[in-house]
Amino acid sequence: MKRVAVIGCGTVGASWAALFLGHGLDVAAYDPSPGAEDRLQSFVDHALDQLAELGIRGKGELRFSGDLTDVLGAADFVQENVPEDEALKRRMLADIDALAVEGVIVASSTSALLRSSIVAECKTSHRFIVAHPFNPPHLVPLVELVGEDEGIIQEAAEFYQTLGRRPVILRREMPGHIANRLSSALYREAVYLVEQGVASVADIDAALCNGPGLRWAVMGPHMTYHLGGGPGGIKHYLSHLGPSQVKRWAALGNPTLSPEVQKQIVEGVADEAGDRSIQELEERRDRGLLEILKSRTEVAGKP
Amino acid sequence: MKRVAVIGCGTVGASWAALFLGHGLDVAAYDPSPGAEDRLQSFVDHALDQLAELGIRGKGELRFSGDLTDVLGAADFVQENVPEDEALKRRMLADIDALAVEGVIVASSTSALLRSSIVAECKTSHRFIVAHPFNPPHLVPLVELVGEDEGIIQEAAEFYQTLGRRPVILRREMPGHIANRLSSALYREAVYLVEQGVASVADIDAALCNGPGLRWAVMGPHMTYHLGGGPGGIKHYLSHLGPSQVKRWAALGNPTLSPEVQKQIVEGVADEAGDRSIQELEERRDRGLLEILKSRTEVAGKP
Repeated sequence: MKRVAVIGCGTVGASWAALFLGHGLDVAAYDPSPGAEDRLQSFVDHALDQLAELGIRGKGELRFSGDLTDVLGAADFVQENVPEDEALKRRMLADIDALAVEGVIVASSTSALLRSSIVAECKTSHRFIVAHPFNPPHLVPLVELVGEDEGIIQEAAEFYQTLGRRPVILRREMPGHIANRLSSALYREAVYLVEQGVASVADIDAALCNGPGLRWAVMGPHMTYHLGGGPGGIKHYLSHLGPSQVKRWAALGNPTLSPEVQKQIVEGVADEAGDRSIQELEERRDRGLLEILKSRTEVAGKP
Repeated sequence: MKRVAVIGCGTVGASWAALFLGHGLDVAAYDPSPGAEDRLQSFVDHALDQLAELGIRGKGELRFSGDLTDVLGAADFVQENVPEDEALKRRMLADIDALAVEGVIVASSTSALLRSSIVAECKTSHRFIVAHPFNPPHLVPLVELVGEDEGIIQEAAEFYQTLGRRPVILRREMPGHIANRLSSALYREAVYLVEQGVASVADIDAALCNGPGLRWAVMGPHMTYHLGGGPGGIKHYLSHLGPSQVKRWAALGNPTLSPEVQKQIVEGVADEAGDRSIQELEERRDRGLLEILKSRTEVAGKP
């Protein structure tokens, strides 16, 4: 693998581009939006500095082009990141289908759409996969893979592993894949706690990132309950505490995002953010992620 | 604050004891179970080594006693951690009520019981609070506080802050408080994904701790969506993507912990654990937590 085509250079595409470049791969980037090239270059410069902190210091070459044929003609791998509009994605993947070199894997970063619907017009659909990253992709290791050809999925998984990513493989497609479904499930309860006036938005956020969120950076929920079951592990946990877990599920909330709840959330987030701009908060998030990634040695759950 | 009584010295009580000792407080510990003193000492020795890595190197004195009156007589603060049995807890808190020095705060570590039910027999219930930590309490900063007297809650919050904890205050009691409700909500969906055969247990765990779990060690869910809303922040997010979030909530699963699902989880966890014993996994979890805690500088969300 030497040259990757990055199609669509918004936040996700630009972050992927930086990751590829940092690992020494050449990137040919395509984005028809006005000003896209400058925004991409500026994002990549900043992200490459961050990657250098993690010891990722490859020197891939970045080339930007407004010509899709040119960008796809010499690519060994394609990462597509156009906006989450089903018709647009479907058309773009069909175009890529016609232009990408035979046998080249085409990965879509789609978070919300189903693979089956966006590859519907592709003649060589077997080589099209979903490879959904988590924002920002150059820092967060997760990549969720969905495909129809096991060999292609394996090849893609190995490729992402060479970039320090942690691919997880879905056995079948599912709206929201895995991580966004877990996030949504948690967020529903977080909104319920706001709606019910149980705590401030800032305290709910703090409860997560100083409690379970901290542990979930180290191991997943199943492994967590394995350790919560004492010497008998998950088997003991499920047989003894399973019923109370099911009871707790039944007591979880089902909130609405009414104007009143939205107002409470918006005001609560404003309190929590204080005078920090979104850009400052992003920088602090990235700083936090970088420090955790730097600190990662071998941890449980084989992340 | 100079001397803390730790009532009940299982995993949670022992971990609290280590935290108090590491911060230079004397601990008088009570536990009627056979062998409790040795288990406590051994846990504390190990935990104090971990705390020393975080620069917490106080030299409180640990005294164990089988006499509740003796332990409570000279305590400035009481942390109760007896088993999660409502009748037992209620009786123990009533005993503490009669024996603890006037004005001393009594904090229960209960995770599953409601404060109102366990303080029912206390004459001085206003000084009784729930202070629920997250396992292991000497490492994970979260403490969830529930009480009836705002002054007492404030005093307790300040005390826990001196121990490097992050207290969050519940405005009203709620089964499971905040963090366990968020955990349960996420776990329900994790079990659903197993039930539906979407991915292996190990991949579901990996998706969390390499994706949203990693980010949630840095900031909570509301702040995360604030950054997901672009320049318009959470307000833009809720008004534009709120409806799709609500739609996602409706598509979340409602699994059962049937024998078949339990079997899949147990086998999946066994695959994930490989040849690592529960003790090894705990050590790796603690190592992961320690490294993250060491790396924590100032991060977004003011954790």
